[in-house]
Amino acid sequence: MSDAAAQYLAQNREQHIAQLVDFLRIPSISALSAHKPDIRKAAEWLAQALAGSGLENVAILETSGNPVVYADHLHAPGKPTVLIYGHYDVQPVDPLNLWVTAPFEPSLRDGRIYARGSSDDKGQTYMHVKALEALIRTGELGVNVKLCIEGEEEIGSVHLVPFVEQNAKLLAADTLVISDSSIFSADQPAICYGLRGLCALQLDLITANSDLHSGTYGGAVPNANHALVELLATLHGKDGTVQVAGFYDDVKPLSGEERAAYAALPHDDEAYRQTLALPALHGEVGYSTLERSSARPTLEINGIYGGFQGEGTKTVIPAQAHAKITCRLVDHQDPERVLDLIEGHLRQNCPEGAAISLTRIDKGRPFLTSLESPAIQTAAAAYEAGWGVKPLFTRMGGSIPIVEPLARILQVPVVLMGFGLDSDNLHAPNEHFELANYDRGLTTLIHFYTHLQAVR
Amino acid sequence: MSDAAAQYLAQNREQHIAQLVDFLRIPSISALSAHKPDIRKAAEWLAQALAGSGLENVAILETSGNPVVYADHLHAPGKPTVLIYGHYDVQPVDPLNLWVTAPFEPSLRDGRIYARGSSDDKGQTYMHVKALEALIRTGELGVNVKLCIEGEEEIGSVHLVPFVEQNAKLLAADTLVISDSSIFSADQPAICYGLRGLCALQLDLITANSDLHSGTYGGAVPNANHALVELLATLHGKDGTVQVAGFYDDVKPLSGEERAAYAALPHDDEAYRQTLALPALHGEVGYSTLERSSARPTLEINGIYGGFQGEGTKTVIPAQAHAKITCRLVDHQDPERVLDLIEGHLRQNCPEGAAISLTRIDKGRPFLTSLESPAIQTAAAAYEAGWGVKPLFTRMGGSIPIVEPLARILQVPVVLMGFGLDSDNLHAPNEHFELANYDRGLTTLIHFYTHLQAVR
Repeated sequence: MSDAAAQYLAQNREQHIAQLVDFLRIPSISALSAHKPDIRKAAEWLAQALAGSGLENVAILETSGNPVVYADHLHAPGKPTVLIYGHYDVQPVDPLNLWVTAPFEPSLRDGRIYARGSSDDKGQTYMHVKALEALIRTGELGVNVKLCIEGEEEIGSVHLVPFVEQNAKLLAADTLVISDSSIFSADQPAICYGLRGLCALQLDLITANSDLHSGTYGGAVPNANHALVELLATLHGKDGTVQVAGFYDDVKPLSGEERAAYAALPHDDEAYRQTLALPALHGEVGYSTLERSSARPTLEINGIYGGFQGEGTKTVIPAQAHAKITCRLVDHQDPERVLDLIEGHLRQNCPEGAAISLTRIDKGRPFLTSLESPAIQTAAAAYEAGWGVKPLFTRMGGSIPIVEPLARILQVPVVLMGFGLDSDNLHAPNEHFELANYDRGLTTLIHFYTHLQAVR
Repeated sequence: MSDAAAQYLAQNREQHIAQLVDFLRIPSISALSAHKPDIRKAAEWLAQALAGSGLENVAILETSGNPVVYADHLHAPGKPTVLIYGHYDVQPVDPLNLWVTAPFEPSLRDGRIYARGSSDDKGQTYMHVKALEALIRTGELGVNVKLCIEGEEEIGSVHLVPFVEQNAKLLAADTLVISDSSIFSADQPAICYGLRGLCALQLDLITANSDLHSGTYGGAVPNANHALVELLATLHGKDGTVQVAGFYDDVKPLSGEERAAYAALPHDDEAYRQTLALPALHGEVGYSTLERSSARPTLEINGIYGGFQGEGTKTVIPAQAHAKITCRLVDHQDPERVLDLIEGHLRQNCPEGAAISLTRIDKGRPFLTSLESPAIQTAAAAYEAGWGVKPLFTRMGGSIPIVEPLARILQVPVVLMGFGLDSDNLHAPNEHFELANYDRGLTTLIHFYTHLQAVR
């Protein structure tokens, strides 16, 4: 690895962390339209940071939604080109009252940086910027790089696919690197070779034109909450399986080899349960925890709401009730087909007296890549340089819906080089990023960029 | 009836309606602590109005909660004393977006006054004030009256019972009159002789200390929404019955006579369904609509909420989910015992991996009164004077939890002289009060107060 680049990073560490804190202060929540100006602010901040790091052709490129920030550094003719994908948008922050420090007032404590986006994905994206800056400033960047940092990952990357289709030439590369995933544990790096897909829908149920008084009408008319509860309770069996007919049709049974590989991973259910402070684990009978959370599909009710939520009591029969549902998909499950099946199930089981309407939201296909690409082998050696141990190869339970279309449109092998931890509280209160992972990750990235030139 | 009082009301009608509009402008929502100052404002407004109407000894009497507004007029020695109970607090207004005009900007249209509290119960309480004003101003008030108007009816009248116990002498009367109920239909008055009781609880369910990412953990850990839905779905059977063991133990089977009386009431299920714009009626199999909504007990889920409710998607596994539950009770059902049974049911059916905590909120016993009291007979004659038809005698599905303890503590016969309609949208968006009922109701009240002196 490059000693000069490492020295540069060490000398500038404090200033770099302070810059990251500035980035994390911007509440760039893509799911909430009130934060549109913050999305723009984050894109502008990032563009300035890229230019300040010595990257070139920095541009805020418009899409039909949130803009993409592009930059490149193409001064290594005959050497490979790496495309780096990341995202500068973040998840919503509610329930806000459960945050120890405010989500957009980054707090450095216990060797961590606490803030929404610290791990997912501003922090990890920022590491690439600083690794590249170190290599550029020390004259040691020996590959060509392009960065494509989007602002809609947390809402399904809806406008990025047409953007990539239209800009395939601009984004053409030999390897696509994405740091938006987790390693196995603090001391055990891992390279992710599989992601679950995602599909989402909103269920709106209505039983009347208006809420009704529960004294006057109670007993005589339908209650939207009762209908919703009855309907949603049909989605899962007591054994944790999804009860939507056909849901598992396109799921490949795990092979004996795959199950053996899962069983060989260092994992302790009891420690996992305790870390999460759960009274019990729960899921599909017949599969291990790691299988359930990365190789099996799920259907989750992410939100329910209907009727009165204020203090005390309101004796009302609600006319409307709602649910937000997402699925994690694996193997050959097609998001549209799964949504068709769920829609059919919900319509068939809709209680009498209730009418439902369904809105499909975002979706992404599952992703699995080969472990044999030279870039993945370089990444493995780089992790060993960063952590001092060989990385595991794992499948991740989360989704980066854009990975599958990016790989397909750009016809490029993908390396998922994550530096987060599953325990970073992604999408939850008190999201944080381990500074140890930041440091080891930078070492890893310097090694990766330095050695990639040999393996085109 | 008193022609002079009627003439006084006719001459001042416009000004009286304008005053009522002022009263309705005050957002005196007792369920929401942010509205505490509005509660005080409504009490002060009412006290001024009472004094302005010629009532005496007007006082805002403190309780451990919201104050009681008291006034009297005791210049008819040897004549009966009527205690008038009402309430100046109102229900919350959400969902606000379904109101055609703002709930606290009263709107006069289609012969109605639209505002929160217009029917329940500011409008009906105000009618007594104006009827008494007319009789006082024309020198024709021939009975003694006391008014006890509270500010916590919509939150269970929690502090009124000790208040009445401590002030039993102040409130002593021969008859208690309450106008907080409905007549049968616009052209068919009714005297209510039965009220359902009420009990309420909040269910808080927890599966983890923090929300978790549905990608990383989905499939491996419990989801609070799933547990809530599974638990709540056990509360009702497909036949509309409440599935809590013992729930119906203290419910008297309807006698053949009672069922015949119900069947004789003018009611059309299809017209009722159309009026409410419902796709279907729904309830306990084996009972008619009117039986279900007034003589049978219910369990309603008034509110559910858990996880993400914002725009779009949040791929989260919620750690907490909540429900608000109320029951309407009949006959000998005891609110505490029913809450014990529900609590037992919920604890027994709580899914593995979830913990629940239950908070009991307000409660009131069911109420049934004899039809034989002279005051009820005077009220019947008064309705006939107001509407030109004899009133029906009906049981009401709603609850006025304070009625049972008021009757018990003060040892006084109760007359429920309502002037609302079930279709007034009580507790719902677009609450309104028919001005025709206001006018006929005033005629009824003048007749009632004038003739009551004869029937001590």
